[in-house]
Amino acid sequence: MNGALRRPAPLRAGSRAAVVALSSPIPPDRLEVGLAVLRDWGLQVSEGLHLRASHPRLDYLAGTDRHRSADFTAAWSDPSVEAIILGRGGYGAQRVLDLFDWEVLAQRAVPPAVMGFSDVTALLAALETRLGVAGIHGPVVTSLGDADVATREHAWAVLCGREAGTVLGAGLRPIVAGNATGGLLGGNLALLAASVGTPDLPQADGRIVVLEDVSEQPRRLDRLLTQLIRSGWLGQASAVVCGDFTHCGDPDMVLEVLADRLGGLGVPAYTGAAIGHGVTNLAFPVGACAALTDGMLSLVDDGEDRA
Amino acid sequence: MNGALRRPAPLRAGSRAAVVALSSPIPPDRLEVGLAVLRDWGLQVSEGLHLRASHPRLDYLAGTDRHRSADFTAAWSDPSVEAIILGRGGYGAQRVLDLFDWEVLAQRAVPPAVMGFSDVTALLAALETRLGVAGIHGPVVTSLGDADVATREHAWAVLCGREAGTVLGAGLRPIVAGNATGGLLGGNLALLAASVGTPDLPQADGRIVVLEDVSEQPRRLDRLLTQLIRSGWLGQASAVVCGDFTHCGDPDMVLEVLADRLGGLGVPAYTGAAIGHGVTNLAFPVGACAALTDGMLSLVDDGEDRA
Repeated sequence: MNGALRRPAPLRAGSRAAVVALSSPIPPDRLEVGLAVLRDWGLQVSEGLHLRASHPRLDYLAGTDRHRSADFTAAWSDPSVEAIILGRGGYGAQRVLDLFDWEVLAQRAVPPAVMGFSDVTALLAALETRLGVAGIHGPVVTSLGDADVATREHAWAVLCGREAGTVLGAGLRPIVAGNATGGLLGGNLALLAASVGTPDLPQADGRIVVLEDVSEQPRRLDRLLTQLIRSGWLGQASAVVCGDFTHCGDPDMVLEVLADRLGGLGVPAYTGAAIGHGVTNLAFPVGACAALTDGMLSLVDDGEDRA
Repeated sequence: MNGALRRPAPLRAGSRAAVVALSSPIPPDRLEVGLAVLRDWGLQVSEGLHLRASHPRLDYLAGTDRHRSADFTAAWSDPSVEAIILGRGGYGAQRVLDLFDWEVLAQRAVPPAVMGFSDVTALLAALETRLGVAGIHGPVVTSLGDADVATREHAWAVLCGREAGTVLGAGLRPIVAGNATGGLLGGNLALLAASVGTPDLPQADGRIVVLEDVSEQPRRLDRLLTQLIRSGWLGQASAVVCGDFTHCGDPDMVLEVLADRLGGLGVPAYTGAAIGHGVTNLAFPVGACAALTDGMLSLVDDGEDRA
C-alpha cells in the first residue's frame, strides 16, 4: 500500500507547520504546552483562524463545520505550509469530510504532513481514500504536551522521514500468534467503525490494522469490533495489532473482548503496541510498510523515495 | 413495506410465549416482575434453557453465543410457540445473527410474534432482511415490569393484532415540519448504526424511521447519526421520528444534536414519540403502515389481513 500513497516531504528545523482544529474545543493551557513542543522542534507555527473557537450550539465542537473545514483547507492550500498538525481529537472530524472540496485539495502536488490520531483517524482515512495521501498517525498538539520523551522524539523523527527501522511495539502479547507484513492502517476503533458504509474507509486487504480507543466500555468495544468484522472489513487484514485501550473499564475484561472478537479472524492478532491514548503514543505514516515478527511490530525500509 | 413483510398470527389469552435471552444477563428480580405481566395477559410462558445464564468470560452477555442462539432457534422451531419475547436488551443480539441457521428458521410458515427493543433492534432488523418477517418493536420482559399501564396495554394490543389506529406520539415537536406515510422501521440508534455495512440493515426507502437510545452522550449521538447519514441510509427515509433519548446527558444538547443532524435531511423530522427507554414505550410492528400528520404519528389500517 505504501508505494501507492503519496508521502509528504520530510520536515526539518525551520519548516512551517499550521495547527488546526477539526474536532473538539481545545483547552488553551494544554494547547500552549503542545505548541511549545512544536517550537522546540524548530517549527515555525501558525494557527488556524478558528483554532481556539467553539461551536455556538454544539459544545463538543471547536467552531462550526464551515470554520473548521475552512481552516484546514487554507493551511493545505498554502504551499509554504509543510505540515498540518491537528490541535486535538475528541469528536468532529468526520462531520467536515463532505464539506472539503477534494478537487481543490488534490491540486497540491506534494502534500503537507498531516498528523493526528483518535478522532483524526477519520481525516487520515479520508486523505487516503480521497487523495491517495499518507497522513501520519501520531500525537495531536494537546497530547504532545502530556507525552513522554519517546513519544515526542518519535513523532519528530517520523515528521522528518526517519521512521524506517523504528519499533512500534515489542514483546506484544499474542491473541493469535504469527508473523505478517503489510502497510499500516488504523487507529481509532470507534472512528473506523463509524466509517463503515461511508466513502472514507480504506481497504484493509493485506494490511496490518492498528486499533486503539479511549473511554469505550467492553460491551461498546465488542459492538464496534463486531461491526468491523460483520461488515467483512477486518477479516481482510493481514494482522491486527492493538495499542492502548485507555479508560475502557476493567483491563482484564478489555483483553477478554479483544481475544473473543479478534481470535477468530484467522490472522495474527496481538495486544500491547505503544500506540493510542496511553503514556507512549508512537507515530507512524499511514500505509508505511511494517513487519510483525515474533511479537514485534516495526517499520521497515520499503525503498520508496520520499517526495 | 408492510405488505411485503410476513406478520405473526395474533395472540390471545392462552397463547404460548417463550422468553429468551439474546443480549445481556437478566437480573432475576426484574425478570420475575416482567414474567408476571405476561401471565397476567393469560400467556402460557416457557423459559429458554439459558434465560438466566451468564457468559463464562464476557460479563455483559447472558450465556454464550451458541446457547443464546440455540434458545431462540428452539423457540422459533416449536410450532406451539406463538410468541418469543426477549428477556432483556443491553448488548449481544448482533453477535448471534451469523450463528442462526436462517434456512431452518425460514421453514416455519407462520412466524411467531417476536417482541423487544433496544439491543433487540438488531434482531428485528435481521428478521426483516433474512426472513421478510415483521417483528414487534416493543418492551422486553424486564422493561415490562417497570412499564406504565399504557405501555403494557399497548404491547398486549399489538401482540393481539389490534394496533390499527393507535397513536405512537401526539404533539410531536418539529425539527422539520411536514407529513409523511410509510412502513415503520427502527428503533435503537446505536444498533442501527452498528448494522451499517452488514447484511442486516433493512432499506429505509420511503419508510418512517423511528430512533431512540439510552446512555449515549451528545457527541456519541452525533457520531451515530452521522454514520447513518453519511452512509446514505437515513436520507432515504420518508420521515424520521425520535422517541426518547434517555440518560443521554443534557436534554437541551440532545435536542440540538438531533436538530443539527436531522434538520438537513430534506424530510420531515420530529421528536417526542412515546417510544424507547422512557416511562412509556409504545409497541409497533416493524413495517406497519404509519402516518405522520400534523405532528401525530399513528398506525393506519393498511387493509392487510393478519396471517
